[in-house]
Amino acid sequence: MRLLSYLVNGTPCYGVVAGGGVVDLTRRIGSTFPDLRRLIAGDGLDVARAAIAGQKPDHALDGLVLVPPVPAPEKLWCIGVNYNDRNAEYKDNSELPKYPSLFVRNASSVVGSGQPIEKPKVSEQFDYEGELVIVIGKEGRHIPREQAWDHIFGMTLCNEGSVRDWLHHGKFNVTQGKNFDRSGSVGPWIVTADECNPRAPHDILTRVNGELRQQDSTERLMFPFDFLIAYLSTFATLKPGDVIVTGTPTGAGARFDPPRWLKPGDVVEVESSKIGILRNTVVAEK
Amino acid sequence: MRLLSYLVNGTPCYGVVAGGGVVDLTRRIGSTFPDLRRLIAGDGLDVARAAIAGQKPDHALDGLVLVPPVPAPEKLWCIGVNYNDRNAEYKDNSELPKYPSLFVRNASSVVGSGQPIEKPKVSEQFDYEGELVIVIGKEGRHIPREQAWDHIFGMTLCNEGSVRDWLHHGKFNVTQGKNFDRSGSVGPWIVTADECNPRAPHDILTRVNGELRQQDSTERLMFPFDFLIAYLSTFATLKPGDVIVTGTPTGAGARFDPPRWLKPGDVVEVESSKIGILRNTVVAEK
Repeated sequence: MRLLSYLVNGTPCYGVVAGGGVVDLTRRIGSTFPDLRRLIAGDGLDVARAAIAGQKPDHALDGLVLVPPVPAPEKLWCIGVNYNDRNAEYKDNSELPKYPSLFVRNASSVVGSGQPIEKPKVSEQFDYEGELVIVIGKEGRHIPREQAWDHIFGMTLCNEGSVRDWLHHGKFNVTQGKNFDRSGSVGPWIVTADECNPRAPHDILTRVNGELRQQDSTERLMFPFDFLIAYLSTFATLKPGDVIVTGTPTGAGARFDPPRWLKPGDVVEVESSKIGILRNTVVAEK
Repeated sequence: MRLLSYLVNGTPCYGVVAGGGVVDLTRRIGSTFPDLRRLIAGDGLDVARAAIAGQKPDHALDGLVLVPPVPAPEKLWCIGVNYNDRNAEYKDNSELPKYPSLFVRNASSVVGSGQPIEKPKVSEQFDYEGELVIVIGKEGRHIPREQAWDHIFGMTLCNEGSVRDWLHHGKFNVTQGKNFDRSGSVGPWIVTADECNPRAPHDILTRVNGELRQQDSTERLMFPFDFLIAYLSTFATLKPGDVIVTGTPTGAGARFDPPRWLKPGDVVEVESSKIGILRNTVVAEK
């Protein structure tokens, strides 16, 4: 199933991509599961499947105002420097890391697919980072790596939009440059694990105005999905709907010489075969 | 007013410290303002004042299970290295920073006053950091520094508990060591701005088992409250209930030689004259 969240006249709804459109779940099972996070937490996939059986779409997908599939996750973890040759891009001669670099994005820093992402007023260094995302289905702490796969509900995509000159404002941490309002995106939907098979290799690519900029495969991750789940759950209980953005391949705009920053009007697409395309157009912050 | 959040038989409630106990607001105005975050967002202080006028306390403060005053803030920002001589503690000969270091804690990493904080299984380097906290009352982006004070709803305290050997696992960022489940605390309550006057100097001190470990004053902050609000709002819209943990003085356990780590049974108290005392006992993670 492809599950997504959206607004209808400003009201938050969620549903399933089916029958050439979107079958709304809010009106059908919203009293039991008010939003997608609580559907995941309540193990509501079978209920959702029964609810959409034989139903015609309520909405065309085109024109629907999408929000991130889990609009307000309890935790939105981001992994830095995970593809094998990303560490070399820093040109600091450092050894390969033993543990992943990790930061947190606030939910207000990401929009849904099809919504504008914002180049901030205060920076000319607005950049894309295409990434695969895993969504947690089952709560756990100290999850053994061999059981980690059972905790994945499904997968989606992220443009982990970054404001490069604000990344290293502080003595430590990249927080500022990763938390500009509406600077990134998550979506378009969650493909459930039974359909996307998180264990299999997944491709990930990013295009800007149709030009390929990033392309890689999860086969080259230094810290694969099962490692990340085991590792994160060592210190924090992973909860249904928690989001893990798993790292970007080489080829972000900052790595070109000269750098190629995003500008208003640019279209950024993040794609993976089993998931789909996350597409956003850059606008200038008003 | 001193506003606080707590559980009664597991049900989330909020109220006011008054008349030698706690007057519950959930039962009186909960249909309008279901929790303290929404009371703040809805500008409900006058309604709360009217609701408690002449009322007797519903609960004794002792024995009430407190949770952080805003249990699920949209954003829980933490400032690193803010008191004047903290930078020198790193002994890396770096210049004083131009901008604050910034990281995010997830809400699940903090408990309320009186609740146990957890020394993790995987580390012997569990440490305290006493800090003053500002709570945002009024939404804003690009807030000019001279208007920043108007955006403060009130103040509270934080033990920004840290797991030192997990702070620098990654190439960048201190996320891991700052996000262990129940490793820190916020509370005991929010003192509203009209009673605590955020512009005035505030003392901050931390005791472990009664022994003074940290003591400083906001007069020595490199990045004062109004600067932090203006700076954060450059990239993120500050929302009612957002929490800014403003940095710790010198004297954390890691800075002693040899270091003095927290162990089960230790009592950590963070105190400030106009706010009160945040008190937690260390337990071992089960």
